[in-house]
Amino acid sequence: MKRRIAVVLALCGAAASVQAQSDQTRSSHGQPNLELRGFGSFHVGGREIAITGRPVREMLLTPGGAPTRVDPNGVYVVEQMYVQYLVPARRRGAVPLLLWHGGGLTGVAYETTPDGRPGWLDYFVRRGWDTYVSDAVERGRAGFPPPGVFDGDPVFVPKNRPFEAFRIGQGPGSYDEDPAKRRQLPGSQFPMEGYDALLRQQAPRWTTTDDAILRAYLAEIDRVCPCVVLFHSQAGQFGFKAAQLRPDKVRALVAVEPSGFGEPGRAAALKDIPTLVLYGDNIEQDARWPVIRGNGLRWVETQNAAGGRAEVIQLPALGIRGNSHLMMMDRNNAQVAGVIADWLRDKGLVQDE
Amino acid sequence: MKRRIAVVLALCGAAASVQAQSDQTRSSHGQPNLELRGFGSFHVGGREIAITGRPVREMLLTPGGAPTRVDPNGVYVVEQMYVQYLVPARRRGAVPLLLWHGGGLTGVAYETTPDGRPGWLDYFVRRGWDTYVSDAVERGRAGFPPPGVFDGDPVFVPKNRPFEAFRIGQGPGSYDEDPAKRRQLPGSQFPMEGYDALLRQQAPRWTTTDDAILRAYLAEIDRVCPCVVLFHSQAGQFGFKAAQLRPDKVRALVAVEPSGFGEPGRAAALKDIPTLVLYGDNIEQDARWPVIRGNGLRWVETQNAAGGRAEVIQLPALGIRGNSHLMMMDRNNAQVAGVIADWLRDKGLVQDE
Repeated sequence: MKRRIAVVLALCGAAASVQAQSDQTRSSHGQPNLELRGFGSFHVGGREIAITGRPVREMLLTPGGAPTRVDPNGVYVVEQMYVQYLVPARRRGAVPLLLWHGGGLTGVAYETTPDGRPGWLDYFVRRGWDTYVSDAVERGRAGFPPPGVFDGDPVFVPKNRPFEAFRIGQGPGSYDEDPAKRRQLPGSQFPMEGYDALLRQQAPRWTTTDDAILRAYLAEIDRVCPCVVLFHSQAGQFGFKAAQLRPDKVRALVAVEPSGFGEPGRAAALKDIPTLVLYGDNIEQDARWPVIRGNGLRWVETQNAAGGRAEVIQLPALGIRGNSHLMMMDRNNAQVAGVIADWLRDKGLVQDE
Repeated sequence: MKRRIAVVLALCGAAASVQAQSDQTRSSHGQPNLELRGFGSFHVGGREIAITGRPVREMLLTPGGAPTRVDPNGVYVVEQMYVQYLVPARRRGAVPLLLWHGGGLTGVAYETTPDGRPGWLDYFVRRGWDTYVSDAVERGRAGFPPPGVFDGDPVFVPKNRPFEAFRIGQGPGSYDEDPAKRRQLPGSQFPMEGYDALLRQQAPRWTTTDDAILRAYLAEIDRVCPCVVLFHSQAGQFGFKAAQLRPDKVRALVAVEPSGFGEPGRAAALKDIPTLVLYGDNIEQDARWPVIRGNGLRWVETQNAAGGRAEVIQLPALGIRGNSHLMMMDRNNAQVAGVIADWLRDKGLVQDE
């Protein structure tokens, strides 16, 4: 039953990506103008709940305003999701590209990097992809519901955590308030001058909302797709599961260091969907990442054993080193995006120029 | 001490706005391409807090992931604010334009309208304004902090509230789950086919965060301005107070139905800042809005008594009828934006074409 995991070595693609990065780097401080067909946003999904039996309060919502009777009882819309899109004038992506963020983040993860360079949203729009960035249920502009709708409390991200957990630093205890004492991984591509900005974009997250998040992503797919779905980390399970539930709507999956996966029993649903699973550097010496990658490699085996077309790219195998779990923000984020863009072209998803 | 409140009747401006609306309406479904110098985002403001003495938990953050030790103790960054910008290739606004949302909302209020038409962000970018839209502290992509940082609990928005409180419907009790039984104001410009979408963009808000919100807005001004600040409803107090604290950075203020105001003792700080206070329709028959508008008209008197240049435009006086408190989403939102754009041109803030 076991099949070899396709480890793509695509060295020519890597060379092309280095060129793309060079172009991108030049353009990041003096970029050419960008011509769009337009941009906009919408919410998808959500359901109604009724709250009853809570006390009415008289509140002054703003100083100088009129006192307002606030009745918390009533019907609320909860579990919706926010989507923002930018669509380029010269469309080259065969279908829209959806960017789904990881846990503790919002769609901002794909915008300007913490150190102020163009992010993957900019990269893919400028290369002709109609690009849709979302904030998952309970994250960012999706909003969050009144108490009682979700079980448990949200988790917040302390200053040390991204550094220690996302292979920027050398694991637990490597972060220090004194920048000189932080033990960053040698050759790390994460732009530490932007670390405080990264902390500002961390979003609280619940850990009990997976089903609601998946429902909202399905609502996005039903509205926007056929499409390519690119997803990161926590969104691994949403990307694979959503594609299993809407296989006719998904032309390709790009899983960036996914930490969750599909339903093994439904792996055959993905057999016709080209799938790329992408990993950065410095996984072996980390306490957690060998386990997470191991789960990913097993998932690829599962998918391919069911007739699938999943491929793994380990960036170091292409000579691309130092990438953290937040590779869309790393110094070489355009180079990494180039690897993805080349893969999508190889799959026939880029229209002729 | 009392001075006449300048009620601008600018009928020529209104005629120009009707023309602008006609252009906008045509372009909303077949808009010309939009050429940008670029777009991006960043966070501003924020401060660090330390949390100690809370228990460590072992959590499975995603199914299939590795169990993670989550220690809630540590240093957190809180009270930052999110800013997104789009800057047009052909810049005509003399300075950037900042759009600050009202309570219960995020910057999404200025994006695509709930019924899918271009919002004021699109309007002003297409007219050549470098435009910065933000999510205030604790709203949307600004994130919210761990328990204990803010006093009290957030307020959530039930389905009936925008309809009843924002002059879409005829006040308390006018909303009904059955669309046929809703008592909308006669001639209302709010696009009720988008009402469910409006509910999906409502954001929880605290009522004890005014100082933190103001600090973050000042951080935005310090980064982006000189500028024009356009602000709505709850942001009234932030717009006027921020301008009082940064009078050299603010070239004009546009207050859209503000529900809060500046410090009366510092009114003279605004004397050189052209100020427009804008009101929609159907205020007289509402239970709350005559009070809120009365506060606004008194503020204009205060500002002008201190040598200021504040003007009031009541849209019905221009023959523009039916506007709700959410006039940036109303059917004639481009017409209302045109009134603002014309006023900014009159103040010398639009560069020659």
